[in-house]
Amino acid sequence: MNPANPPRQLQVHRLPMAHPGDLSALADLLDEGRVRAEDVVAVIGKTEGNGGVNDFTRGYFTQSLMHLLGARLGRAPAELQRELPCVLSGGTEGVLSPHYSVFSRAEAAADAPPGPALAIGRAFSAPTPAADIGRWAQVRAVAGAVRAAMADAGIADPAEVRFVQVKGPCVTGARAAAALAAGQSVASADPNRSMALSRAAGAFGVALALGEMADDPALESALLTRFDLWCGRASVSTGVEVEANEVVLLGHSAQWRGPLRMACEPMADAMDLPAVARALARLGLRAAPQLSADDSARVAAALVKCEPDRRGQVRGARHTMLDDTDINAQRHIRAAVGGLVAGTLGDGRLFVSGGAEHQGPDGGGLIAVIAHAA
Amino acid sequence: MNPANPPRQLQVHRLPMAHPGDLSALADLLDEGRVRAEDVVAVIGKTEGNGGVNDFTRGYFTQSLMHLLGARLGRAPAELQRELPCVLSGGTEGVLSPHYSVFSRAEAAADAPPGPALAIGRAFSAPTPAADIGRWAQVRAVAGAVRAAMADAGIADPAEVRFVQVKGPCVTGARAAAALAAGQSVASADPNRSMALSRAAGAFGVALALGEMADDPALESALLTRFDLWCGRASVSTGVEVEANEVVLLGHSAQWRGPLRMACEPMADAMDLPAVARALARLGLRAAPQLSADDSARVAAALVKCEPDRRGQVRGARHTMLDDTDINAQRHIRAAVGGLVAGTLGDGRLFVSGGAEHQGPDGGGLIAVIAHAA
Amino acid sequence: MNPANPPRQLQVHRLPMAHPGDLSALADLLDEGRVRAEDVVAVIGKTEGNGGVNDFTRGYFTQSLMHLLGARLGRAPAELQRELPCVLSGGTEGVLSPHYSVFSRAEAAADAPPGPALAIGRAFSAPTPAADIGRWAQVRAVAGAVRAAMADAGIADPAEVRFVQVKGPCVTGARAAAALAAGQSVASADPNRSMALSRAAGAFGVALALGEMADDPALESALLTRFDLWCGRASVSTGVEVEANEVVLLGHSAQWRGPLRMACEPMADAMDLPAVARALARLGLRAAPQLSADDSARVAAALVKCEPDRRGQVRGARHTMLDDTDINAQRHIRAAVGGLVAGTLGDGRLFVSGGAEHQGPDGGGLIAVIAHAA
Amino acid sequence: MNPANPPRQLQVHRLPMAHPGDLSALADLLDEGRVRAEDVVAVIGKTEGNGGVNDFTRGYFTQSLMHLLGARLGRAPAELQRELPCVLSGGTEGVLSPHYSVFSRAEAAADAPPGPALAIGRAFSAPTPAADIGRWAQVRAVAGAVRAAMADAGIADPAEVRFVQVKGPCVTGARAAAALAAGQSVASADPNRSMALSRAAGAFGVALALGEMADDPALESALLTRFDLWCGRASVSTGVEVEANEVVLLGHSAQWRGPLRMACEPMADAMDLPAVARALARLGLRAAPQLSADDSARVAAALVKCEPDRRGQVRGARHTMLDDTDINAQRHIRAAVGGLVAGTLGDGRLFVSGGAEHQGPDGGGLIAVIAHAA
Repeated sequence: MNPANPPRQLQVHRLPMAHPGDLSALADLLDEGRVRAEDVVAVIGKTEGNGGVNDFTRGYFTQSLMHLLGARLGRAPAELQRELPCVLSGGTEGVLSPHYSVFSRAEAAADAPPGPALAIGRAFSAPTPAADIGRWAQVRAVAGAVRAAMADAGIADPAEVRFVQVKGPCVTGARAAAALAAGQSVASADPNRSMALSRAAGAFGVALALGEMADDPALESALLTRFDLWCGRASVSTGVEVEANEVVLLGHSAQWRGPLRMACEPMADAMDLPAVARALARLGLRAAPQLSADDSARVAAALVKCEPDRRGQVRGARHTMLDDTDINAQRHIRAAVGGLVAGTLGDGRLFVSGGAEHQGPDGGGLIAVIAHAA
Repeated sequence: MNPANPPRQLQVHRLPMAHPGDLSALADLLDEGRVRAEDVVAVIGKTEGNGGVNDFTRGYFTQSLMHLLGARLGRAPAELQRELPCVLSGGTEGVLSPHYSVFSRAEAAADAPPGPALAIGRAFSAPTPAADIGRWAQVRAVAGAVRAAMADAGIADPAEVRFVQVKGPCVTGARAAAALAAGQSVASADPNRSMALSRAAGAFGVALALGEMADDPALESALLTRFDLWCGRASVSTGVEVEANEVVLLGHSAQWRGPLRMACEPMADAMDLPAVARALARLGLRAAPQLSADDSARVAAALVKCEPDRRGQVRGARHTMLDDTDINAQRHIRAAVGGLVAGTLGDGRLFVSGGAEHQGPDGGGLIAVIAHAA
Repeated sequence: MNPANPPRQLQVHRLPMAHPGDLSALADLLDEGRVRAEDVVAVIGKTEGNGGVNDFTRGYFTQSLMHLLGARLGRAPAELQRELPCVLSGGTEGVLSPHYSVFSRAEAAADAPPGPALAIGRAFSAPTPAADIGRWAQVRAVAGAVRAAMADAGIADPAEVRFVQVKGPCVTGARAAAALAAGQSVASADPNRSMALSRAAGAFGVALALGEMADDPALESALLTRFDLWCGRASVSTGVEVEANEVVLLGHSAQWRGPLRMACEPMADAMDLPAVARALARLGLRAAPQLSADDSARVAAALVKCEPDRRGQVRGARHTMLDDTDINAQRHIRAAVGGLVAGTLGDGRLFVSGGAEHQGPDGGGLIAVIAHAA
Repeated sequence: MNPANPPRQLQVHRLPMAHPGDLSALADLLDEGRVRAEDVVAVIGKTEGNGGVNDFTRGYFTQSLMHLLGARLGRAPAELQRELPCVLSGGTEGVLSPHYSVFSRAEAAADAPPGPALAIGRAFSAPTPAADIGRWAQVRAVAGAVRAAMADAGIADPAEVRFVQVKGPCVTGARAAAALAAGQSVASADPNRSMALSRAAGAFGVALALGEMADDPALESALLTRFDLWCGRASVSTGVEVEANEVVLLGHSAQWRGPLRMACEPMADAMDLPAVARALARLGLRAAPQLSADDSARVAAALVKCEPDRRGQVRGARHTMLDDTDINAQRHIRAAVGGLVAGTLGDGRLFVSGGAEHQGPDGGGLIAVIAHAA
């Protein structure tokens, strides 16, 4: 480490919101000088919408966030939005609580605990044309952005990466039409399938960058078909509002200081409580069966991916999530897995997101936890 | 024990259904002689409706059940329905699986393990007039039926009672009008409030019979107001289709044989995983954090009551269940608590029911488990 | 007409239900001798479910109906169900009212008004194998059943047919697996797409039988693609519970007597109020804009097919039905078109059904009305 | 008219939105100089949320609107929000289309058609304390604001008022607690009932100001009980975000010029198509049964209030809106009445709002139409 690269430190503030336009908790931190607007590198949160196509709580929160930070930084909100990843999952079913985690980084305090400590990096790929979405070109684009985010975080060894959040573009009707007019094809013109393909390509891209998968274009056909291929450290969402693949990467680096550490475990199915306990145990937290209040207070953030099992059963018993015309299947599974993890941590402030294709075992998903070292 | 009272044995069969009209699993048991129609004393199940006023899966299942048993017994389905308690909770949110538990009792097999063992009793109060619903008269009527069910089960000591399921009547518009025409008043003419009052009176009635509460009519005003008063062994539902209070009671009795035992624990809130572990521990089952496959196989049935916390928070974090216009609050809480308990037991075949007023701590509820002794 | 074929008369009773298991209105008619059980040839109704895959109100009503008629006829309910078409649409959104129309036929009363009058016929195709569903073979099978139903109704001229209700089978997971195991392919293994294909094939089959379409297997590729091809007298639904194509056909025949007449008009879109007025005008009923009470009383039944416009707009204005994660698009459109037609007729007892592919113009559907001649 | 009061002219622009944050259509009008930001006096619109407590599309749109106009006017969005009425109804069920109507006023163009023409006025009452909400004090406060809005509009004769939109405050939990702490009582601490009471008081307030009701405090007890008392020109909504009663009033005045005219008719029930036709006829528009394209183009805006009949029937037929646990009753009725009115006008860009207590006949509501004179 040379003097030009002083050690850095990551801060994570998990904040409540009274409604999707309420950024007052962050405004208070900024006012108090506890967080500087220029240090904010990413925001990941849960808003209380339905999590579907017509969930506008994500847009409302994002607009409010960008107005707040834009005013503090003297920058146009729309411009800031193209630089600052804001990953939101709609739907606070059951005991899940609307909240957002603000990730900020700065030069480490002189008295910060020595590293290796949790590091954060971010990167954007070039805009992904509609013709590339859900194809190997997107897999490579994501992989490139993941490698750039590793460099940004100061992490050289893929084994030190703990969790990669990707937000990828999808094929909208307009984009599909433009591609076809330009003589190109799209992997799917159906928006829902395109979103699933983009998530799948994102998961493969993370696997590629982390050395878990070969750069073999023949694997393109495995997207959404070979569910035995998955990455246990990838969490991917899609949005019509993005054109590039946005990456937020977390892992351990000797260049960083501070008390934060992270662990991530694949979940075999929606009842995989042992996986939750394993992730916690890696951080010195004991679920027996629930964290003590002291241990619960050490948790800085928890992120979960899950999926209603497409085979219609969990451990041999029929579930009804996929055939429910009243409640979307993703809302069902978030409520159930959210209830399980919240009960284990004793806390409902969890990022629980559906759409877990290739992000953990088929029918399961993964859990990642950030905690203060004991 | 005299020769006229040979020891009895309870059997619990937890059966799957493909849809609310599918009684084929029970029909098979009857065909195979594993259960005799005349031995069936109660059915408790979860059907895949919405659990609300317009949930007709309960009526559909009940009609199908009564037609099946009526045909085997040579009795009219409508008549049988007035004798055989069939308690259904609609809503198999998240990982919950549609199923029903058939409780049957018969003379114990010669080689049955000696008791004390789990016993079952049932009783019906006289029809409760609309003017009595949600008032102390109903509390006393329920208490009387609980005492009768104890006698039916051969349980003398209230301490040996483990779990009491009550199904009470409510004030429909027609019943309210009739009462008013007769110069009587009703506690509430609002159907939803009347149902809550009936559940509250049911819980107080169980507490009264079990010696946990005094027979003090002044406590009528505590119904739905003093949530510090609760019974940790009462589970109450209401139905427009019943006129009397129906009681199914489970507890330990020396007059019964067999391997079944039961434990019940109050849950302090929707994240009370330790309460689940305690109930299991009382039966020699270890959740560390999840039951082993062997222990899970020992579980014969599990029953849970829960409630979206009316104060809008769980452990200090805001929840959104009560303000959701899209999904009923009871569906939210069943999904979350169902996910928690299913993950602990490794099984989604759980009876999880909302409307837990006075049935366990405010904002929480209770969990009851029936298991085979080791 | 020879003495062996005395003139017949159709009766239509439109009856209320208090819930999906309530057949008391029909039981009363049977008790009073106003309808004979053996004369009932078809039932078409609306039940108050969600109209989706997990709508069990249809099964509940059907079971209740078959038990009632089975008891009167001394026949097994399951056997009767294979002979008596019972076409139900779930979902009584908005002002739609749960009801069912009982179609019965018998020898005409001596004083019945002379014909030609409204006639009814029914027929079942042979069971349609999974490999045929959504293919030309199904189109031909439906056409054959329509011709048989015309013969049953005593209608020779296709121009005299007013309305054909078809209930077709679909490819379930089990049927798809069986077909594949037998070395056959299926048009789609996706249940929802299979249902749409079956409806499309049903509409083409009606068009074929009525001489509106050529028997050209090359048109198989037009199913769900060429929405400019449609039949304005076909109403098709699908059900997992049927294996054959069931047909109920209504039209005018000189062999029938009585006051009933029928008219059917295609609707260009969900706002096509003029089409409703045209259908009424054909029956001498004047919507100006609403039927008078006298005219409204002349209406015996009204049946509507409709569809949320797949292009996302109605008359140039964006609608939000297709992107709503909270309410299924079919529920939206039934409520809206139901409100329009109910307001015109002054009556909410309407059969309004979605899934109108090729059953009327793209984005629209059709309306059929049965009324007493003035 | 003196030179200090030159004639004014009202403009109404009905604009589409692609999502609740999309104000681009208004931005375009401002950019093109067709509307001046300082002339905008009110916005009334429909956003695509669920219309319930957790509908955040209203807040999202409002924030976006205030940011747009604030930037043009050099004013703080929060400040502007306290001056500019923005009345939104969430829920574009069925064929309803998300849109907003911008009301602006300016000096009349020299060549504007002579009046009397449609005029607009607005006013705010003083903040209404929680203790006054749903009581006669609020009725008087609303009446005062209505009179002020009449003066603002230049309308002296109440008979010339056509439509009054009120947005009133409600009792939130926090406000109730504060009132109780101050030794005051509240009419209801239940938020939903408080909102209904506030709407009722708003309707009475309009009736009072328009001379349709006496200023008799004894009528306070008629709020939500005497549904035979109603005002056919009042449309009231409530919002937790307002503290005063906001009034937007429309009527005819000789001080205004331009082509716009307005008519308003009470609707007897959800099927009152004749009332729609009467309102149109007053403006020279003929629904026979549907407006011609030319007549439809003359309509500038249409506003409807409606309500699911609390007696459970419409014209003698049972509806299921009030007992549906899956879909809120207000969503049902908006879809149905919206479908009816849209079909009559041939246009889905309608403001259709529920919660019509005392705003038109019990179980019905009202319809108001703004159109260009022929």
